[in-house]
Amino acid sequence: MALEKRNITSQKESFAKWYQDVVREAELAENSDVRGCGIVKPYGFKIWKLIKEELSRKIDSSGVEEVYFPMFIPLSNLNAEAAHVEGFSPELAVVTHGGGKELEEPLAVRPTSESSMYPTFGKWIQSYRDLPLRVNQWNNVVRWEKRPRPFLRWSEFLWQEGHTAFATEKAARKEVREMLEMYKDLYEYMAIPSFIGRKSTLEKFAGAEMTTTVELMVRDGKAIQGATSHYLGTNFAKVFDVQYLGEDGDLHYCHQNSWGLSWRSVGAVIMAHGDDSGLRLPPNIAPIQVVIVPIYKEDTRSKVLEFAENLKEELSDFRVAVDLRDDQTPGFKFNHWEVKGVPLRLEVGAREIDEGKITVFRRDLNAKTSIPLVDLSNQVEGLLKSVYTELFKQAKDFSSRHIHRIESIDDINDQVGFFEASWCESVESEKLLKEKFSMVSRVLPREFEDKEPKNEKCFITGEPAKHDWLFAKSY
Amino acid sequence: MALEKRNITSQKESFAKWYQDVVREAELAENSDVRGCGIVKPYGFKIWKLIKEELSRKIDSSGVEEVYFPMFIPLSNLNAEAAHVEGFSPELAVVTHGGGKELEEPLAVRPTSESSMYPTFGKWIQSYRDLPLRVNQWNNVVRWEKRPRPFLRWSEFLWQEGHTAFATEKAARKEVREMLEMYKDLYEYMAIPSFIGRKSTLEKFAGAEMTTTVELMVRDGKAIQGATSHYLGTNFAKVFDVQYLGEDGDLHYCHQNSWGLSWRSVGAVIMAHGDDSGLRLPPNIAPIQVVIVPIYKEDTRSKVLEFAENLKEELSDFRVAVDLRDDQTPGFKFNHWEVKGVPLRLEVGAREIDEGKITVFRRDLNAKTSIPLVDLSNQVEGLLKSVYTELFKQAKDFSSRHIHRIESIDDINDQVGFFEASWCESVESEKLLKEKFSMVSRVLPREFEDKEPKNEKCFITGEPAKHDWLFAKSY
Repeated sequence: MALEKRNITSQKESFAKWYQDVVREAELAENSDVRGCGIVKPYGFKIWKLIKEELSRKIDSSGVEEVYFPMFIPLSNLNAEAAHVEGFSPELAVVTHGGGKELEEPLAVRPTSESSMYPTFGKWIQSYRDLPLRVNQWNNVVRWEKRPRPFLRWSEFLWQEGHTAFATEKAARKEVREMLEMYKDLYEYMAIPSFIGRKSTLEKFAGAEMTTTVELMVRDGKAIQGATSHYLGTNFAKVFDVQYLGEDGDLHYCHQNSWGLSWRSVGAVIMAHGDDSGLRLPPNIAPIQVVIVPIYKEDTRSKVLEFAENLKEELSDFRVAVDLRDDQTPGFKFNHWEVKGVPLRLEVGAREIDEGKITVFRRDLNAKTSIPLVDLSNQVEGLLKSVYTELFKQAKDFSSRHIHRIESIDDINDQVGFFEASWCESVESEKLLKEKFSMVSRVLPREFEDKEPKNEKCFITGEPAKHDWLFAKSY
Repeated sequence: MALEKRNITSQKESFAKWYQDVVREAELAENSDVRGCGIVKPYGFKIWKLIKEELSRKIDSSGVEEVYFPMFIPLSNLNAEAAHVEGFSPELAVVTHGGGKELEEPLAVRPTSESSMYPTFGKWIQSYRDLPLRVNQWNNVVRWEKRPRPFLRWSEFLWQEGHTAFATEKAARKEVREMLEMYKDLYEYMAIPSFIGRKSTLEKFAGAEMTTTVELMVRDGKAIQGATSHYLGTNFAKVFDVQYLGEDGDLHYCHQNSWGLSWRSVGAVIMAHGDDSGLRLPPNIAPIQVVIVPIYKEDTRSKVLEFAENLKEELSDFRVAVDLRDDQTPGFKFNHWEVKGVPLRLEVGAREIDEGKITVFRRDLNAKTSIPLVDLSNQVEGLLKSVYTELFKQAKDFSSRHIHRIESIDDINDQVGFFEASWCESVESEKLLKEKFSMVSRVLPREFEDKEPKNEKCFITGEPAKHDWLFAKSY
């Protein structure tokens, strides 16, 4: 059966165009009238919802409570922490009029909520008994984007931001690691391997002491920052007076963290798993895990449709759909659900029913197989697990094939992927790398943190190296 | 055991002050630095989350899909529908600067999303096959408030807004009723009875053909609009060109609806059930359904605490907490959880353990009873059902005791509650009522829609009456 034409550029021809095409053809999202802001369509939103539900379970079970703070922040609050305002002020959206009048003080739409929440934390926290304070909110934030890109860079985006306060640096740093692990686990849930560790001075969050990151490699070899977990030290606590009375009877500043993950995770899923036929969704976050396509002629129509409906019933433990459209050919439908990345397609025809089997198309392998009509729910469960394992394996294989150990900046050439190199960690050298190769450090992987660098000398400056880092171009 | 002082004004002394006190003492919410905007604390947010989860299930199961549209709306879009802009422009927050520059066209922060979504609906909908289109989004909206009040009137609030398009008026109006029933059911889930039906010309949504409402009576006799479901007709479709090609081969305008419920539902729960001791939460939306308070002396401490922990384990089907604080008296704890409206409190002491029973305090009745230590999970389930039934009954009784049939505007006097009267439905008469008694029509109850009015003459004008309506002061 001939496939209909897919309106998708190949990844090799242009990965950027491929991405745009998939976002459009899989009906995930589209641009809006408001420059830089996007519209997330039902199928795209459902992927985000499934990611969100899993992360929400993880956050809840770690004992963090949900809150809501206003999205408007008086500019004076935002301007209170010097590094923070320097990082965010070029990206602000500013409300100057409200209720028909010019406001006395303009309000920023939150780019992140540190300066919205922490003045209140100062009131909530009195003594050591009030610690730790651990809250999270799911919300929209705005950072004005010059080069918007669906999910990855929109001026308005949805995310969660966790904000916590501890009595000691040790307790705060412990949570930074735990939340980073939580995000790593979340990406594993999406069959995406990740590199976790800390960020360089240049790349850390504006206002943080230390930023840790979950870095993902996507199928053009570039990096996506999948989530971050920051140790803010006492920087904000000093500015917003977040203090507690200790058991020792003295006042101390709280040690604070913030950590967040946005719907750019949807973009990461698209780029980490997609192929030239479109999306390939890991079963855990697939809006439809199994699609049933009935194949019939006029005389077998009612028999096949009835069988398909029964099949759907039998598979009700899964997110399952039957494509009943009468005005489309099976070939069109196959293509439609492949573009949308549905993990399993069951093809049901009259002859197969008679022979007691059905054809299964696995999107991870783009291959068909035949299964007997017994114990279908268990078979499908097994197949979905197998799809997950295969997608994860492919992503891990891709990732390890595209990490290049280099000893000098000249070794980069036009290779694609992540570059592992021993580095002096100076801001100047990173700026140079950025200028020359549009590349920055992505992460000091945790397993390299306590190790000597493999090369004594920095791959850029020749100065003494401190650690082995990963470098890459990024989204 | 003497109760600690509760910092709550009695409802009789000042219902408005009582409300503020409960919001503060139950740790639900507080004011923020941004005038008119509030901070929702963990306990308050959890109530909203439980409401939201139940409503989300209902919306999903009705076949509506979730989407996300930008919160910024170009002013030209918002200004396109005449009645709509007239209703909302005095309440807008306007962004004039973005990314460090003055914007070419100012952007409104959405007060509601009709004018954000419908230009896109026009593109999504081509033929009758694309209908009905039914989407929903959970988001924040901004309507500048002159007289803010926690949950009920904040400049920024969270809500869901459903937006749908149909081929025919009949299909659209059918859904308006279905969504209204959904909201009524949701309030029943919160043990709150409601009056449903349509709104007057003066009170309908800006841009709608017809607004239907769920009206709730709270314990000072005033009304809260709990949710609305609007038939928009083809008003917006004509402005934003939302047309479909019919089976007849002609272009037709879509018939559209929108329907929404916000976190003012949390305010309604507080006001519909609360008493002079604070909140009384219906079990379905209580963050903690059962609190266990261990009562011990030094020599019975470990025995009682171990028993309490086991009890918590046994009741793990419910949202249950043990108050383990060592620095507070049982009396303080009793008060604390009463203010927070926890439906059931289990008091566990050494003597009771020996006697094989525990004391249960029911917040709905403010009364204690004793239950044997057998089959506790079933007993608690039964008690929670009984709390629900009792709260619902109390609310229904209150409601029916406070509906007054009146024949003339002069009968209002200083009675408290809803007033049922036969009305001519003229805009002028409603304006007069508003001016004189700060009162408007709340709803034409559905059961009166097809009936003749009880009095031939209007209670305000003496002109021929059309229907019997309910009138009240409102929040």
